[in-house]
Amino acid sequence: MRIAVDAMGGDHGPAVIVAGAIDGARAFKTAVSLVGREELIATELSRHDTTGLDITVVHAADEITMDDHPAQAVRRKRDASMNVAMRLVNDGDADAMVSAGNSGAMMASALMVLGRIPGIDRPAITSGVPNGKNAHTMILDLGAVADPKPVNMVQFAMMGQVYAQTVVGIANPTIGLISNGEEETKGNQLTMTVHPLLRQTEGLNFIGNVEGRDILTGEVDVVVMDGFTGNVVLKSIEGTASMLLKVLKDELTATLPRKIAAFMLRGAFGSVSRRLDYADVGGAPLLGVNGAVIIAHGRSNERAIRNAIGVGVRAVEHDLRGHIAQRVGATLSVAGEPVTS
Amino acid sequence: MRIAVDAMGGDHGPAVIVAGAIDGARAFKTAVSLVGREELIATELSRHDTTGLDITVVHAADEITMDDHPAQAVRRKRDASMNVAMRLVNDGDADAMVSAGNSGAMMASALMVLGRIPGIDRPAITSGVPNGKNAHTMILDLGAVADPKPVNMVQFAMMGQVYAQTVVGIANPTIGLISNGEEETKGNQLTMTVHPLLRQTEGLNFIGNVEGRDILTGEVDVVVMDGFTGNVVLKSIEGTASMLLKVLKDELTATLPRKIAAFMLRGAFGSVSRRLDYADVGGAPLLGVNGAVIIAHGRSNERAIRNAIGVGVRAVEHDLRGHIAQRVGATLSVAGEPVTS
Repeated sequence: MRIAVDAMGGDHGPAVIVAGAIDGARAFKTAVSLVGREELIATELSRHDTTGLDITVVHAADEITMDDHPAQAVRRKRDASMNVAMRLVNDGDADAMVSAGNSGAMMASALMVLGRIPGIDRPAITSGVPNGKNAHTMILDLGAVADPKPVNMVQFAMMGQVYAQTVVGIANPTIGLISNGEEETKGNQLTMTVHPLLRQTEGLNFIGNVEGRDILTGEVDVVVMDGFTGNVVLKSIEGTASMLLKVLKDELTATLPRKIAAFMLRGAFGSVSRRLDYADVGGAPLLGVNGAVIIAHGRSNERAIRNAIGVGVRAVEHDLRGHIAQRVGATLSVAGEPVTS
Repeated sequence: MRIAVDAMGGDHGPAVIVAGAIDGARAFKTAVSLVGREELIATELSRHDTTGLDITVVHAADEITMDDHPAQAVRRKRDASMNVAMRLVNDGDADAMVSAGNSGAMMASALMVLGRIPGIDRPAITSGVPNGKNAHTMILDLGAVADPKPVNMVQFAMMGQVYAQTVVGIANPTIGLISNGEEETKGNQLTMTVHPLLRQTEGLNFIGNVEGRDILTGEVDVVVMDGFTGNVVLKSIEGTASMLLKVLKDELTATLPRKIAAFMLRGAFGSVSRRLDYADVGGAPLLGVNGAVIIAHGRSNERAIRNAIGVGVRAVEHDLRGHIAQRVGATLSVAGEPVTS
């Protein structure tokens, strides 16, 4: 297996990406192609011991920045690292790609280069939120489609189901529809239209409307929502966790006796941090495109990049793309030839 | 000042409501009218020392349950405690009303009995979220209007501004529009329509789009959103805080040495809990109706009811209704006579 990593994407630059990619290659036993300015990547690689690893560099002269207009940048900067990495996947030279760059451009590039899985009208971004049951609740969409149509939401539900089954390993995942109340009559126009459609979707363990707090309790495996709500909710949850841990740290270091007691509890705080660390999730798969594309957070640290590579490896190992195609009853095209999935 | 309290509303029954109301009457130096079944309330009152307090009982034969259809229940159960409390406000026998009952019915009852402030098309529910600056970020709407029109969102912004100015005491509050990205081009159809309208609204310190995490950092005073998103976001934030504190508690009590160290830190944990306690907020004002109406959470404990009374007292003291009417350039009607505000 080989994962293409966009070495130029992300807020922290190539140093963090390269270091994370090396960690990922070792941890998940995969080959890695680092895509970007050859001389920059070579400099970063020289700082690390890569003995026993299969790491290659693929030069890309250009890069897409966070300020670029997604669709325009993808079209105009054909040789941007993100586009080059995407073509490696399309050409079969890599099995998945990871980037912490402009996520709008990632979607545009994936659609232009890889296209959609037949039967999927709009791709969706998914991620797991650490929940109270020491597991993750998958939520989608996280921002690919701000104003989805009802049919998009049904496809999101099916893709979330497939992800939970194949990658997370839950045999019959429960699916909830986020709403402003559990009753079937609660919701906005979109969810009230979608609710009966999900009830009618065959083979879907749909448990009805769920509320914001249900994402955190772990009572439901997959929560479906429009991309606007999903983006706002994910960032609110991350913000709450950060704020709470900051307030806690402030209070625990306010006096010397507290510092001493807190030091005695460092094991407990370490466990809490590990259970709730968002870097542990690492990457959000872009579901529904015809290839494995993993969106890493712009602020990704080394650990997040490492884990995003892990997400890519699992997506490929479990043939996520094939299972989604099968679920939506579509055929896959390989090298121009349609293949019954 | 007199606050009417719906003694029958809420998941925990009259015992909790009456106890909280007595606490509130004492803490905020206000008279209280407890509305509901006279014999039940009298029994609860007899368990408490009410010396020096002005607490009266107003009998209401019926009550609206959580399972009742809001609009129907309000029309059919004219003598429900919620409706009776609302009429006390409308008749000038109380200055504000508090209920932890069916929030949909609260809105229907408020609209039917009190009506809207002229110039406000749809009321909105607001509440403060504890933020990292040891203050609260006001967010609205929290569920009154699941599918607002752009004009509703502009009115939400003005009402949020007035609340922050008059009740919270921020001279020139910053207003943000929640979106899935800070750039003006990010958003769904609603927010992209609303963004330029807020830019054009005179006297509004509009800082543009804000993201979910900005609610928690305290970089913005008031965040405007549709009621669907607001409800989901508030419950996600509450759920995250609950889950995190539960995980922390599990870890801190996992072994005896940890329990001992955690005991030494009880002061710190107490401070954190106080800074983040949602019961401290207590009640969410229903802004835009022609009277002070405070929606308390169905799960309200005594402390939440007490604090909801505080929210009602502050809304009346600061003439929130009058200031909203003034902000939207409307006239107020008192006893059928229009009054220029």
